[in-house]
Amino acid sequence: MKKLLSLLLAAALPALPALAQKFEGLALTPPMGFNTWNTFASNINEVLIMETAEAMVKNGMRDAGYTYIVLDDCWSLKERDADGNLVPDPAKFPSGLKALGEFLHARGFKFGIYGCAGAKTCGGYPGSMGHEYQDARTFASWGIDYLKYDWCSSGTRDAREAYTTMRDALFAAKRPVVFSICEWGNSKPWEWAKDVGHLWRTTGDITDCYDCVQRWERGWKVILDLQHSQVQPADGQGNGIGQYAGPGHWNDPDMLEVGNEGLTVAESRAHFSMWCLLAAPLMAGNDVRKATPEILAILTDKEAIAIDQDPAGKQGWRYRAEPGREIWVRELAGGEWAVALLNTGDTAAELSVDFGHMWFLGGTCAVRDIWEKKDAGTTVKPFTKRLESHDVALLRLKPIK
Amino acid sequence: MKKLLSLLLAAALPALPALAQKFEGLALTPPMGFNTWNTFASNINEVLIMETAEAMVKNGMRDAGYTYIVLDDCWSLKERDADGNLVPDPAKFPSGLKALGEFLHARGFKFGIYGCAGAKTCGGYPGSMGHEYQDARTFASWGIDYLKYDWCSSGTRDAREAYTTMRDALFAAKRPVVFSICEWGNSKPWEWAKDVGHLWRTTGDITDCYDCVQRWERGWKVILDLQHSQVQPADGQGNGIGQYAGPGHWNDPDMLEVGNEGLTVAESRAHFSMWCLLAAPLMAGNDVRKATPEILAILTDKEAIAIDQDPAGKQGWRYRAEPGREIWVRELAGGEWAVALLNTGDTAAELSVDFGHMWFLGGTCAVRDIWEKKDAGTTVKPFTKRLESHDVALLRLKPIK
Repeated sequence: MKKLLSLLLAAALPALPALAQKFEGLALTPPMGFNTWNTFASNINEVLIMETAEAMVKNGMRDAGYTYIVLDDCWSLKERDADGNLVPDPAKFPSGLKALGEFLHARGFKFGIYGCAGAKTCGGYPGSMGHEYQDARTFASWGIDYLKYDWCSSGTRDAREAYTTMRDALFAAKRPVVFSICEWGNSKPWEWAKDVGHLWRTTGDITDCYDCVQRWERGWKVILDLQHSQVQPADGQGNGIGQYAGPGHWNDPDMLEVGNEGLTVAESRAHFSMWCLLAAPLMAGNDVRKATPEILAILTDKEAIAIDQDPAGKQGWRYRAEPGREIWVRELAGGEWAVALLNTGDTAAELSVDFGHMWFLGGTCAVRDIWEKKDAGTTVKPFTKRLESHDVALLRLKPIK
Repeated sequence: MKKLLSLLLAAALPALPALAQKFEGLALTPPMGFNTWNTFASNINEVLIMETAEAMVKNGMRDAGYTYIVLDDCWSLKERDADGNLVPDPAKFPSGLKALGEFLHARGFKFGIYGCAGAKTCGGYPGSMGHEYQDARTFASWGIDYLKYDWCSSGTRDAREAYTTMRDALFAAKRPVVFSICEWGNSKPWEWAKDVGHLWRTTGDITDCYDCVQRWERGWKVILDLQHSQVQPADGQGNGIGQYAGPGHWNDPDMLEVGNEGLTVAESRAHFSMWCLLAAPLMAGNDVRKATPEILAILTDKEAIAIDQDPAGKQGWRYRAEPGREIWVRELAGGEWAVALLNTGDTAAELSVDFGHMWFLGGTCAVRDIWEKKDAGTTVKPFTKRLESHDVALLRLKPIK
C-alpha cells in the first residue's frame, strides 16, 4: 500500500517539459552540398576539405546553393579515448575538427559529419550506439551543422528508436543540426521519420553507373526504380513514396554520382535532372577540384536547381514507363510543372511527350527546355527531341494566362 | 573503383579485439541481497541504506548470503547535469553514492543500483537510453557491483539490443557488475539473454499478496504460474523455462515479499520455499530493520538457502498440479532432490506426496523436512503433513547408499 501511494503521488507531480524534438526550420528545401564518400571513401583529410571548399567558392557551387560540406566515414580513430569521446584521426586532421569547422564557416559553408547508429560504422570506426548524447555534445563543440547517421553493426536494434534517440541527443546538445537518416529504407522510414530527421535514405548505396548492380551498390537508374517501388501504387498517379516528402522532411535516393567516371555526360545530366525531379538532396560526390566545365554546368544550372529547390516541396512521380522511355512529372509552386523525358534505351532515339494526356495540368502551358536553354513552344502540341542513350529532356511548364 | 579499392583495403586490416562481453564468473549461484523497492519505493535515502546494512550484519542476513544491497528507482535528480551525468539526489544522499558504496564495501556488502533502458525510469527519472557508456562509467566510479536495468519508456526499442548495449557499456567500464535484466519477459529474454545478463525477469512486478492481481502487479503465486507458463510444454517433465537457467544466468520471478504485510507467515514461508525451488534470486524486499524473529528465521534458514544456492544450478519444475495441491521438484547436486508440497487451497488440509511415482529419483532416499527441522523417514512410503492454507512442506531427499 505504501508503494502504491508513492506511485500515485509521483504520478500527480507536474509533468516535466519534454526534451524530445526535431530541429524545425532546417532543410525547408532539399539540402545541397558535398560529401566525401562517393569519390574519396576513407582517403580524407583536412587539406582535401579545405581545397574542396575553396574550389566550390571559385567554381560557383557554393553560390549555386551547395553549402553543406560533409565528412563521411573514416574521419576518426578506431578507438574512443578513455572518457569515451570520439577522436578525429590526427594524421588526417592535424588541426582538429573545430578548426576545420571554423575554416568552413568563415567561407559561408556549413559543416557536416558522419556517424552510425550501430556499434561500429560501416568502415569499422566507433559507432554511437550507447554514446548518443556524448557524441551529440562532441559534434556541437566542433560546430557541426549536419549529421549523416548510418546503420551498420546495428544488430537487432529498432531503427525508429535508434534515430529518435540520436534526434533527442542532438536536440539536447542545443546546436541545430540537419539530421540525415541513412537506414537504407529497411524499416520504411518514410512512415515514421518525418518528425525524427530531415531526410531519410530510401535504398542502399548508389554507385557511378547507370544501371549496374554491385554487391551492395546500385547505379542511379536502379536506385530510382527501387525508391519508386517502395510504396504502391506508385505509378502514374502521384501517390507513391513522394507523398511522404515535403519541406523539412525528404526522401533521399542517395548522393550524386554526377561527374564520376562510370557515367557519360548524358548519364550525369539525366541523373541530376531526375534527382531534381524527385526533390532529392543534391550532395555532390565528385572531385569538385577537378570538375570539367561540362559537369560544372550541370551541377550549377540555375533552372534545374530551381526545380529541385522549388519552395512547394512536392516530390515528382513517374507518369509513364514504357520500353525505351520514361516520363516523370513534378508539380511546382504557382501551378507550374516540371517534366523529365528519359531515354532508357541503349541507343539514341527521337522521343516525345504528348501533354494532351496530362489531366493534371491546369491549362495550356509554355514549355521551356532547360538543358537547351530555350523555349520550346506550348503544350498544345507534343514535345519531341532526339536524346542520346540515357539522356534526358528536362522541361518546365508555365501556365499561359 | 577507387572507393571499392579502399573498401577492400579496409577489409584487409587486422580485426580489432571485440569489446563486447558479459562479465563471467559472477552470480554462479542466484544473487542474494536486499532491494529498496518492495517496501520503500521512492522513500529512500542514505540513512535507510546504512541502517539496513547494519541490521543485516546484526540479524545474520549478511552472513546467510544476502550481500547485494540495491538502491532501486528514484535515487537521482530528475535532470542530468550539463555534461549529461546522472546526479544522485543530494537531499536523499548528501554524502554521495561513492561514499555510500565505501560504507557498504567496508561491511562486506556489494553495492547495487537501478537504471533503465528507456528515456525515463518507471518513476520518471532519467533513463540511460543514449547515455549507456557514460552511465556505466559513472556507476564504476561509484563502486557499483550490481545493476538492475528496467524497461519503462523504451518506446519501439529492441530489448535484445538495449540490454546488449548496456552489457557492452558495463564491460567497457571495466568494473565487474552483476547485470539484472528487468524487461518483464516481453521479448522472451530466456531465449537470448544468457550471454547478456546474469538474471532476467520473466514477468511483470510482484506485490505482497498470495494471488491478488493489481494494475501491473501480481501476487507471488500468480507470478509463479506466469513464469511457469512462459515456456510450453512446462508441466511434469522438467523441460519448461527452467532449461534456460544455470550458473551465471537465472530466471528471475522478481524480488521477495517475504515479511511484508499482505502475506501471512505461512504465505511468506511458502513464497520463500518456492523461490528456492526455482533457483530464483533472493532479494529481500521487507524492512529488515524491523523484521520479526519468525520472518528472519525464514530468510536465514540455512537448509532452504542451500537449496536455492545449490551449485548444480538446475531450476525446479512443477511435477503435479491438482485442485488444492501442487508438487514442485528440483534436482540438486550429487543426485539429491528438493520437493515442495504446496497447499493451494483456502483452508488447512492434510496433503501428501507419493514418491513411488517419481520416476526420476535414482533410488530410495532419506527425507528431510526442512521447516520442521527433522528427518521424515524415506521415500518408500508417502510423506504426509497437515498444512495451513498457502503453506508449504519443503523436503530434501538424499539417496541411501
